Amino acid sequence: MARPAPAPIDFWFDFSSPYSYVASEWIDALAARHGRTVRRHAILLGATFQAAELKSPVSYPLKREYSLHDFARSARFHGVPYAPPPVFPIPTQNAARVFWWLSDGQGGSETGSAAARWSQAGLRAVFTQGVALHEPAALKAFAAAQGLDADAAEAAWSDPAWKARLKQANDEAVAAGVFGAPFFRIDGEPFWGNDRLPQMERWLAGGPF
Amino acid sequence: MARPAPAPIDFWFDFSSPYSYVASEWIDALAARHGRTVRRHAILLGATFQAAELKSPVSYPLKREYSLHDFARSARFHGVPYAPPPVFPIPTQNAARVFWWLSDGQGGSETGSAAARWSQAGLRAVFTQGVALHEPAALKAFAAAQGLDADAAEAAWSDPAWKARLKQANDEAVAAGVFGAPFFRIDGEPFWGNDRLPQMERWLAGGPF
Repeated sequence: MARPAPAPIDFWFDFSSPYSYVASEWIDALAARHGRTVRRHAILLGATFQAAELKSPVSYPLKREYSLHDFARSARFHGVPYAPPPVFPIPTQNAARVFWWLSDGQGGSETGSAAARWSQAGLRAVFTQGVALHEPAALKAFAAAQGLDADAAEAAWSDPAWKARLKQANDEAVAAGVFGAPFFRIDGEPFWGNDRLPQMERWLAGGPF
Repeated sequence: MARPAPAPIDFWFDFSSPYSYVASEWIDALAARHGRTVRRHAILLGATFQAAELKSPVSYPLKREYSLHDFARSARFHGVPYAPPPVFPIPTQNAARVFWWLSDGQGGSETGSAAARWSQAGLRAVFTQGVALHEPAALKAFAAAQGLDADAAEAAWSDPAWKARLKQANDEAVAAGVFGAPFFRIDGEPFWGNDRLPQMERWLAGGPF
């Protein structure tokens, strides 16, 4: 009997989270090195912050200055391009609703899926080209450039059904203990932050430590 | 002409910070690999949190559960012993005042100094043996076990001069951009968190990136 495939790595992100962008660039390779796939979850950090009574690090003056510096340095450390977006943070509910529309309609959100490609491309657009995904016209143009039906995408992000789907994703994230992004679970074990890569690598290679 | 010695790595910590304890275990070896020493700064995280309008991660219910798990896992990841202290967090002003009393009176707080030894031993006592450094009797006994004059240590932590010295250290930390612990500066470059070790190593080895 063949061994069952190991479970995918769950990866929660917000399209306006710089550390999620950096993690989005390494997570697929990390998973592949250990025979895993990645299951992505688009969420609104604002919703998880509210549930956890937290705020964004950039909402605190002293922490903001360091964080903006560390976003760029962490991208350089991981060898990925980075350009601070002109508006930051941005509301990302429309991009996230399109993610769930793609996920539910086109075979889920695991590695290689349409939703996974939308996730990676959207994060790259925000953090390397400053694309204003919060502006409907820019989001439509971006959807078209990704090969999607832009009118259908706009209809989806305006549809109460996909608004409810995103809300459900936020609620599920909070229930799963997610209070920030990127957030990961590997076989249930939680890892928070782009900087947990070394611990995740050890866990995947050798199991619980 | 001999090249001037490189500047020490500045390391801010609180005696009740688990990530500071873990960092205290690796920072001297990291520095030594790159021909540096470490200059320690005992501070009260409460003072920097207040200045930055932050709170401890363990004061947020969702984040607390993850953090307590991650403290222990991070210690295991770095191969250092760890036992969650029975009371956490604890007030650490007396242990910090003794640190500055030693530093100012016995040759500073760089690697090998009496203050540096007090720092490392105090963090180990809290996070491997649950020593209640916030209780005067336990702190006196701990000071004696460290070879200090326990009565003189108690006189120091009760002395307005050393209270003022700690307040000065907190103010200097805030002025240096410190909003959490462990916090480091290498030739001015700021690094926050036990998990910035890989970035610090690269910076020390190759300079700015």
